[in-house]
Amino acid sequence: MGKLRVGMIGGGGPGSFFGMVHHRALSLDASRQLVAGALRSEPQAAMAAAEEWGITGYPDYEAMLADCQSGKLQLDYVTVVTPNYAHYAPAKAFLQAGIPVLCEKPMTMTVAEAEDLAAVAKAGDVPFILAHTYTGHPMMMLAKAMVAQGDLGQIRKVEAWYNQGWLATALEGEGNQQAGWRTDPARTGISNCGGDIGTHAFVAATWVTGLSIRRVSARLNTFVEGRVLDDDFNVIGEMDDGATAIITATQIAIGYKNDSGIRVFGTKGSLEWYQERAESLLVRRGVCDETYWIGAGASFFPDSIAAYLRVPAGHHEDFFPALANLHQSLEWSIRKRRNENVPSPFAHPGVDEGVAGMRFVAAAVESSGKEGAWTAV
Amino acid sequence: MGKLRVGMIGGGGPGSFFGMVHHRALSLDASRQLVAGALRSEPQAAMAAAEEWGITGYPDYEAMLADCQSGKLQLDYVTVVTPNYAHYAPAKAFLQAGIPVLCEKPMTMTVAEAEDLAAVAKAGDVPFILAHTYTGHPMMMLAKAMVAQGDLGQIRKVEAWYNQGWLATALEGEGNQQAGWRTDPARTGISNCGGDIGTHAFVAATWVTGLSIRRVSARLNTFVEGRVLDDDFNVIGEMDDGATAIITATQIAIGYKNDSGIRVFGTKGSLEWYQERAESLLVRRGVCDETYWIGAGASFFPDSIAAYLRVPAGHHEDFFPALANLHQSLEWSIRKRRNENVPSPFAHPGVDEGVAGMRFVAAAVESSGKEGAWTAV
Amino acid sequence: MGKLRVGMIGGGGPGSFFGMVHHRALSLDASRQLVAGALRSEPQAAMAAAEEWGITGYPDYEAMLADCQSGKLQLDYVTVVTPNYAHYAPAKAFLQAGIPVLCEKPMTMTVAEAEDLAAVAKAGDVPFILAHTYTGHPMMMLAKAMVAQGDLGQIRKVEAWYNQGWLATALEGEGNQQAGWRTDPARTGISNCGGDIGTHAFVAATWVTGLSIRRVSARLNTFVEGRVLDDDFNVIGEMDDGATAIITATQIAIGYKNDSGIRVFGTKGSLEWYQERAESLLVRRGVCDETYWIGAGASFFPDSIAAYLRVPAGHHEDFFPALANLHQSLEWSIRKRRNENVPSPFAHPGVDEGVAGMRFVAAAVESSGKEGAWTAV
Amino acid sequence: MGKLRVGMIGGGGPGSFFGMVHHRALSLDASRQLVAGALRSEPQAAMAAAEEWGITGYPDYEAMLADCQSGKLQLDYVTVVTPNYAHYAPAKAFLQAGIPVLCEKPMTMTVAEAEDLAAVAKAGDVPFILAHTYTGHPMMMLAKAMVAQGDLGQIRKVEAWYNQGWLATALEGEGNQQAGWRTDPARTGISNCGGDIGTHAFVAATWVTGLSIRRVSARLNTFVEGRVLDDDFNVIGEMDDGATAIITATQIAIGYKNDSGIRVFGTKGSLEWYQERAESLLVRRGVCDETYWIGAGASFFPDSIAAYLRVPAGHHEDFFPALANLHQSLEWSIRKRRNENVPSPFAHPGVDEGVAGMRFVAAAVESSGKEGAWTAV
Repeated sequence: MGKLRVGMIGGGGPGSFFGMVHHRALSLDASRQLVAGALRSEPQAAMAAAEEWGITGYPDYEAMLADCQSGKLQLDYVTVVTPNYAHYAPAKAFLQAGIPVLCEKPMTMTVAEAEDLAAVAKAGDVPFILAHTYTGHPMMMLAKAMVAQGDLGQIRKVEAWYNQGWLATALEGEGNQQAGWRTDPARTGISNCGGDIGTHAFVAATWVTGLSIRRVSARLNTFVEGRVLDDDFNVIGEMDDGATAIITATQIAIGYKNDSGIRVFGTKGSLEWYQERAESLLVRRGVCDETYWIGAGASFFPDSIAAYLRVPAGHHEDFFPALANLHQSLEWSIRKRRNENVPSPFAHPGVDEGVAGMRFVAAAVESSGKEGAWTAV
Repeated sequence: MGKLRVGMIGGGGPGSFFGMVHHRALSLDASRQLVAGALRSEPQAAMAAAEEWGITGYPDYEAMLADCQSGKLQLDYVTVVTPNYAHYAPAKAFLQAGIPVLCEKPMTMTVAEAEDLAAVAKAGDVPFILAHTYTGHPMMMLAKAMVAQGDLGQIRKVEAWYNQGWLATALEGEGNQQAGWRTDPARTGISNCGGDIGTHAFVAATWVTGLSIRRVSARLNTFVEGRVLDDDFNVIGEMDDGATAIITATQIAIGYKNDSGIRVFGTKGSLEWYQERAESLLVRRGVCDETYWIGAGASFFPDSIAAYLRVPAGHHEDFFPALANLHQSLEWSIRKRRNENVPSPFAHPGVDEGVAGMRFVAAAVESSGKEGAWTAV
Repeated sequence: MGKLRVGMIGGGGPGSFFGMVHHRALSLDASRQLVAGALRSEPQAAMAAAEEWGITGYPDYEAMLADCQSGKLQLDYVTVVTPNYAHYAPAKAFLQAGIPVLCEKPMTMTVAEAEDLAAVAKAGDVPFILAHTYTGHPMMMLAKAMVAQGDLGQIRKVEAWYNQGWLATALEGEGNQQAGWRTDPARTGISNCGGDIGTHAFVAATWVTGLSIRRVSARLNTFVEGRVLDDDFNVIGEMDDGATAIITATQIAIGYKNDSGIRVFGTKGSLEWYQERAESLLVRRGVCDETYWIGAGASFFPDSIAAYLRVPAGHHEDFFPALANLHQSLEWSIRKRRNENVPSPFAHPGVDEGVAGMRFVAAAVESSGKEGAWTAV
Repeated sequence: MGKLRVGMIGGGGPGSFFGMVHHRALSLDASRQLVAGALRSEPQAAMAAAEEWGITGYPDYEAMLADCQSGKLQLDYVTVVTPNYAHYAPAKAFLQAGIPVLCEKPMTMTVAEAEDLAAVAKAGDVPFILAHTYTGHPMMMLAKAMVAQGDLGQIRKVEAWYNQGWLATALEGEGNQQAGWRTDPARTGISNCGGDIGTHAFVAATWVTGLSIRRVSARLNTFVEGRVLDDDFNVIGEMDDGATAIITATQIAIGYKNDSGIRVFGTKGSLEWYQERAESLLVRRGVCDETYWIGAGASFFPDSIAAYLRVPAGHHEDFFPALANLHQSLEWSIRKRRNENVPSPFAHPGVDEGVAGMRFVAAAVESSGKEGAWTAV
């Protein structure tokens, strides 16, 4: 089993933090390597960025794809790390060519794009992973596994949240690039806070429980003067089987970095997880709480999760291993199709979660505009 | 300064846990003593309970009040520990006689009763404290003090919650007394979860910030079959000055005991407090979080709070001292009026908070019945 | 069962913090009341302090004892809250008169005094409790109960510690009273840090495990210039059954308040407890850690400990309840002898622990003076 | 700047966990790649392991070195991941050839070997890093930086510890390979617990404070029957400038995985760090504690440490990034010498720490054999 060969689209500029994050994550297991990239939108900058990383450079993704199709370049999958508005086109093009994709979230700009991308992936049966990094944490995977096997009984209520504080002032007016495109409808779509981090909370709520959100009542706020889109996002949702979801996200919580988490209450028990303490999962089923700790070691986990663990007991896997787990799942999907002997990939988010997330944000925006009227997702 | 003499109404039966809690709390400072009581609704049981505690017994509160008015009994204040439906009558009677009252929450059964009680207390200028015990925690008092002096700037958003799990099954059908009256509309009013613990979250949100909630959009659920009233309570509220409140309470979160807390986000900073870790207050105003700890000792606190502290640095004050602080505030109010030299009482909840809480629950019930339509409080 | 009548010796001055602490603790259960006291060494001050508290005053403990013996005053027990050098005489006098004693720690100034006091108590079979407050925490009681019933197997190693920082500078030269007597050999004995807080760690190690320390190798340091006695105390001890104890205490750990705790390692498991998080006990016997929390409620505890609990699940008992538990144990001992129907008192520290503590400190001082040579306790 | 080319010695077998750990860590930054290896002691197995990883294989390190010297293979550095007894020979050979080395700890089997290796490295001025992974945690680096710039004043006392439980029973008799060689004097040297994990605590104490330990009084225990070497290791040390060190390590603490940490007490403040919560550093300098959190983001750290950070604020760097930091330091040392523009490498442990660690363990073993007599290091 040689290393998988990976291409990257976007992610190469000095301001593009996440390209390097994916580069590190895909390198972590020494079973994948980055070999080519169309790393920036400006062709010359793209070539220079590739040279700096020592990989084959392309001026744009179309050129890279052309070389794949002509056989000059062999890629096992590509990872799309462009801004939101530039996910759809390259992801679709590579999927159409039968090349698997690991794509940053949110999947697209609009529901229509998302649905189209999903259709393409399904038509060609091409593996696709949506980079909801937090679902790569073994404790989130364990949470999903526990709910799936009925450990918590029937789910009654889910709370999921994401608190940040970096947009508590009008950073977009001070030349901050990240703040600039996120608060700009032209580049970010109909929702800032909801699309950027509300979708994380949405995925946490639905992916862990396996339940859909059917309709929503939402209250979006824009606290910072001069801003057009929401910087605060609050949704009450009706889920399958009579469950209720409370989903909140905010960007004005000063001092909060990435305070995301989930609480799930079922008829047999409850669980609780915090991204900033990702190594632990709190489960309550009786008088005493059960705190599961990744440091307990691989022997503690079910095989489906243990296959992903890398460190000895008493140590933590954290951010890079979590993201690497999504690449790992895609790698194992790809190798399975080649009949290589690899573990079963875990069900990390894919096109369905991408479509659902886009629909959820759209429904929340609509409901909030109608004084919180219940709106179908 | 002799000890204040205290009378108790209710609280004396074997199942009435909170009478003894107040007995302990009012005894903690050795400046107040319980001397008389009408401790149970059944006259003979009331007399027996008083004898067991070694205090002067009365068959009912009317008899105790009569002795006060005739001068046979001298009471500095009374504490009302009856079930919800029996707060109003004795509290009103003693207030009318000019005797201060410390009353269990929720203040009354209906908004009308609450408004009447408030009118009586104000007409006679009689001190009244509503026993929202958690406001007696020094860290909650510090939170209120910090917001009041502008440390967090203008408040934008408040989250307050109360998660319990003891009513996740139909305990009321198994002879559990506490579950019985709380889920019975005749004895508990229009809301179970909202009235019992939603009001704690409501008081936390409004008392700490000093902001009112003007209108609400609510979603109440009844998860346990056969139950009439809510066992899950979710409210989005519009506060003064454009702030938003997210208030949730539930009784179906298995394994959760008294997981109540508050998060406040302002234009200059944020704070966070958890009842089950009541000794700490998390404040965020810059890059690093500030964790204040009661063990830091009295010198850390502003004088208005330090006056309440009892233990040396490195130790915790917890539940009994918190409740004792409410008695302490009432005691100091009483002594101040006698021109005794005591510290200024802190602004613990009184009749205004009681009225506001009743109105809040009523509005939430109404909104939930109208599919979450925004309803004035 | 009327209230027990309690007398206090010492504890009344404005600087004497602990008198009020005991006053609060003994009042907490409403089954004991302070009725008399010889509260200060100076007779007039003693009378004034008693008047302020509204109790019967005495100019000295001898006068209070005389009234007890003549039948003019009835006391069920006395609590001794004087400085270390003034524990022995009153404790002995009351024990000789057959009156039970709850005495502050360390028990005496010298080993000889301690042994004498123990002999008197045993000769008369008079109940005596040594106020090692931390043993009153339910989680420490649970730790002792678990070890006693073999849950951890045979004990191999114990670590106990107590870190404080308040004596990191020469406070005794700045008029600080507490620092003054504690660093003065005439008033505190042969050891400052060891006697004051090393004994807490010693009691934790031996009381929880039920094992004695047979010989010690010690390293005492005096870090602050001008100080005669130790302000840092480190001992390796050989215990019964081949176990090793590591006992450290320091007063120069800046910022540490009362960071005391214990770790116990046995052949079947381990446990860990921290005074500043007294509500929890960490137990490790398998892959996952077990964290016991007092908030789990009385039903979680064995009956022998549940009898002491006062608050509903989800709340903490802390400092005052812990000290009150020692008074409770003494009360129940006293009532049992009167054939009243009370729970069995828990085995809180008494004269034996007092003697052992004095011997331990003496041996540590001797060993440290001999370059750490192993010295019998 | 192309990628550095790295060779590995040892680390390739199915039981050799740490080869893959180094492989991951050196790959994390995409600026180094593993290109060659003599991965196992048995030549054919060595070649097979290399083939599996897709790197150039060698039957033994001598052959790999020969190719380096002949110019057939270009290596920028090698990493030595063999068992303890096989560190010395290859490390020395590569250092003599002028090729930098990153070597697993403990550095050698004997003090003499350690001194020899240090002499060779210094004579040739060849970079050498000793893989004390925990010193790669940014919070440990911050601790060292704070002490160095005097934030804690003069250091008075240091506590460092390492608690494990995996050897609480005689695993070596059940065919456990790791337990086998660690408890075997022929393969592990004169100390098991002290050499394996006591050295981690030793490095923490001396590296963070910059103080040497001059002499020791030790108590080593062997709790598990049939074992020859220590499984419990307790040392009191005299440090430079009158400071005292308390260093403990144990392998019989059931349930403890890698509970290592350090407390430092100085004349101006204290600090505290725990490996299993490596993302935080507790500093105490005034009334309130300061908790530094890696999630505060790079802007919080001094430049010398910020240069090492990889994740956005609100996330953790943990085990792999910590080990990668040691590789990073070696990389930057190498590139600096080539006048490439890289940050200054942090002073991670090298040959001096390796020699000191070997001497420390030897002195502890000697002292323990002499009833704890103080022994020069």
